[in-house]
Amino acid sequence: MPAFQPVRGMRDIVGEEAQAFTYIIDKARETASLYGYKEVITPHVEPLELLSAKSGEEIRQRMFIFKDLGDRLVALRPEFTASIARLATTSFKNEPKPLRMFSAGTVYRYDEPQRGRYREFWQTNFELMGSAKPEADAEIVLITNNLMKSVGFHGYAFKIGHIGVIRGILSQDGVDEKTQNKVLQLMDKKEFDAALKLVESEKCRAMLKGLIEIRGNDWLDIVEQLQSHVANYEKAKVAVENLSEVLKLINESADISIAVEPAFARGLEYYTGMIFEIYIPGLEIALGGGGRYDKLIEGFGGEPTPAIGCAHGIDRVAIALQTQKIAFEAKSGKKVAVLPITEAMKSEALKIAQQLRVAGVTVEFEVMGRKMAKALEDADKRKVDFAVIVGERELKEGTVVLKDLANRQQNTISIDKLIEKIKN
Amino acid sequence: MPAFQPVRGMRDIVGEEAQAFTYIIDKARETASLYGYKEVITPHVEPLELLSAKSGEEIRQRMFIFKDLGDRLVALRPEFTASIARLATTSFKNEPKPLRMFSAGTVYRYDEPQRGRYREFWQTNFELMGSAKPEADAEIVLITNNLMKSVGFHGYAFKIGHIGVIRGILSQDGVDEKTQNKVLQLMDKKEFDAALKLVESEKCRAMLKGLIEIRGNDWLDIVEQLQSHVANYEKAKVAVENLSEVLKLINESADISIAVEPAFARGLEYYTGMIFEIYIPGLEIALGGGGRYDKLIEGFGGEPTPAIGCAHGIDRVAIALQTQKIAFEAKSGKKVAVLPITEAMKSEALKIAQQLRVAGVTVEFEVMGRKMAKALEDADKRKVDFAVIVGERELKEGTVVLKDLANRQQNTISIDKLIEKIKN
Repeated sequence: MPAFQPVRGMRDIVGEEAQAFTYIIDKARETASLYGYKEVITPHVEPLELLSAKSGEEIRQRMFIFKDLGDRLVALRPEFTASIARLATTSFKNEPKPLRMFSAGTVYRYDEPQRGRYREFWQTNFELMGSAKPEADAEIVLITNNLMKSVGFHGYAFKIGHIGVIRGILSQDGVDEKTQNKVLQLMDKKEFDAALKLVESEKCRAMLKGLIEIRGNDWLDIVEQLQSHVANYEKAKVAVENLSEVLKLINESADISIAVEPAFARGLEYYTGMIFEIYIPGLEIALGGGGRYDKLIEGFGGEPTPAIGCAHGIDRVAIALQTQKIAFEAKSGKKVAVLPITEAMKSEALKIAQQLRVAGVTVEFEVMGRKMAKALEDADKRKVDFAVIVGERELKEGTVVLKDLANRQQNTISIDKLIEKIKN
Repeated sequence: MPAFQPVRGMRDIVGEEAQAFTYIIDKARETASLYGYKEVITPHVEPLELLSAKSGEEIRQRMFIFKDLGDRLVALRPEFTASIARLATTSFKNEPKPLRMFSAGTVYRYDEPQRGRYREFWQTNFELMGSAKPEADAEIVLITNNLMKSVGFHGYAFKIGHIGVIRGILSQDGVDEKTQNKVLQLMDKKEFDAALKLVESEKCRAMLKGLIEIRGNDWLDIVEQLQSHVANYEKAKVAVENLSEVLKLINESADISIAVEPAFARGLEYYTGMIFEIYIPGLEIALGGGGRYDKLIEGFGGEPTPAIGCAHGIDRVAIALQTQKIAFEAKSGKKVAVLPITEAMKSEALKIAQQLRVAGVTVEFEVMGRKMAKALEDADKRKVDFAVIVGERELKEGTVVLKDLANRQQNTISIDKLIEKIKN
């Protein structure tokens, strides 16, 4: 019988990578707490209707859709936002705004697997609902900055754009919403020529082309170029003003590297305002991103509620940890093997193991029934720090043999002093 | 448009319950570390072939099965053990034994929803692979004991049985494996009469009936009754001997309340030896359970590898926390609202917010642009401890206004001293 393998595009996460995942999620949870975001846990399986309502056709085509045994059409969530927006219209309907919510878990997209892209992948997710103010946009960017910094990254940079600017141009020139969505999807993939081809009006094509060509290193400079570019486009002007305020707040309050890209778009259709992604040098895939979506919650039957959120790809952040060779602290302290010399000593040895664990020491109890030499050899291989050998003769005197596996020294020591000795 | 609801049998976990989940999973992760169990993360979606190979027909009928876009027959995992056993035969094939592995996450079973039973539910899972020794069985029970104790439960009790005893009787009297599985499933549901009806041989029926009728409060007494009951059944005798050794180790090394039930069975077909469940008084549903499964890994194409494991139902443990009114520590310290007096103060206020967070203080920044009185009223409702009011005049002198919302006092204070003042 051949060994089983995971489903294509999914994988087992083990060893140091699994530790990295726990480390990153802990940092995200810490960040959530510092910014006042409450953890919420939503199902991995959601009604298809919910997930496809506002995310857009492209995402829908990449979803894992199926029927449950009750013939309900459901899907694995491709992201968190729809579920959290559902919460805002149900359980949290009467909670005072703003709502700040944090989640961590897996999401699912049927993409072609490649490095950093899996069909099941892990995200940490932040949503801030109820504020249309630029300080809300700034907060979501600053949260991502906080997470990147606390994980240990250096040299990372934000890419920032504004969907309102692009849609403002397209709608004023009469491009319908469906075509707008297609244009934005192509722009997301940097297929700008294909995107331009979808726009019939020559004037609008020129506007879009001009937007794509705006370049600059300084955010103030780009904002000025944008302001003059959209001078005759009312909605786009308001959007540029909003982008400008957000950028001002971020730049004045924190030391962050930002590249403003006016033609930057993202895959999800529900975005309405500022959008961003975060990158480290040498890694082409974004570690996270997000944006403003002011129409989603009312689209779900809730009160009109401006909102903004972001998600971070843990699989990718873990790759980035390797790229930047960041050594994250392994939480565990000293590791001890407890070895009974004879069968008759097992219960007593188990008791001693338990005492050590109560004191916070990691104990691997000898469950293989191996001879002492073999067990010690194995403990050595597993980088165990100490072996505690429990024998009848010593035990009668209230002692055990403590063997320091690093320097090969061994001493008979009273059980009372064992914990102290191991911990220091 | 009506508000969306979660899929039937699944649910949003929010507020204190979400905090309880994090608390419980943290305790389980701590326990894993103390016992030397390494965290592994496996997919929620697995090949149907893997999940249905050894778990049994009953579980298979309750799985969420579907085809992915590549026409692969897959299912949502109904438990962790199959995935972890897969690891043992692939990535960990050449690792020295024993393997100790910990996981936490959701599993899926299409059951009729009721209190403590959901179609998506959370488990923490421990697997110990490579040892057939009773100390391995003891370790898994002691881990569960450790988790129950560290979470804060009192008065909990273990129910312990041994599948080897039941199968030993049935197989010696010629009951085929398929019928054995059905008998065990009925016994699991306490449908003993129906189970007995499946057994043709009168002798075997009498043996099984006798087993069901064995009662007693003392584990030693029950083991003695069992020994004499199966005196003529070779395999069952060996199984009773094994059960006796496991019980001896547990009872001698820890102070645990145990009820031995010789006719106790569990739903999964792969169990071969000791099985257990854990209960608290007043709650009829098990908080967790597990058992020995010595044939599963070779059934997956690996080397013959004895193994044992357990899982804990987090949804149920969270209910039990309420039942026993256990107040778990909320990790967060003081909560502060930072409020800019004017629009012009927003960037400076964001900076101060960030300084407080770096010092570990939870800060809710005012993102709603509300008037001061309204923002303070809201902060009060949200049980914020302090408001930090950032105004132009004060800021020029390097100060802010710190308002203690509990006692309504307010002081102008230098920014340098802010953190110290809030933390004490």
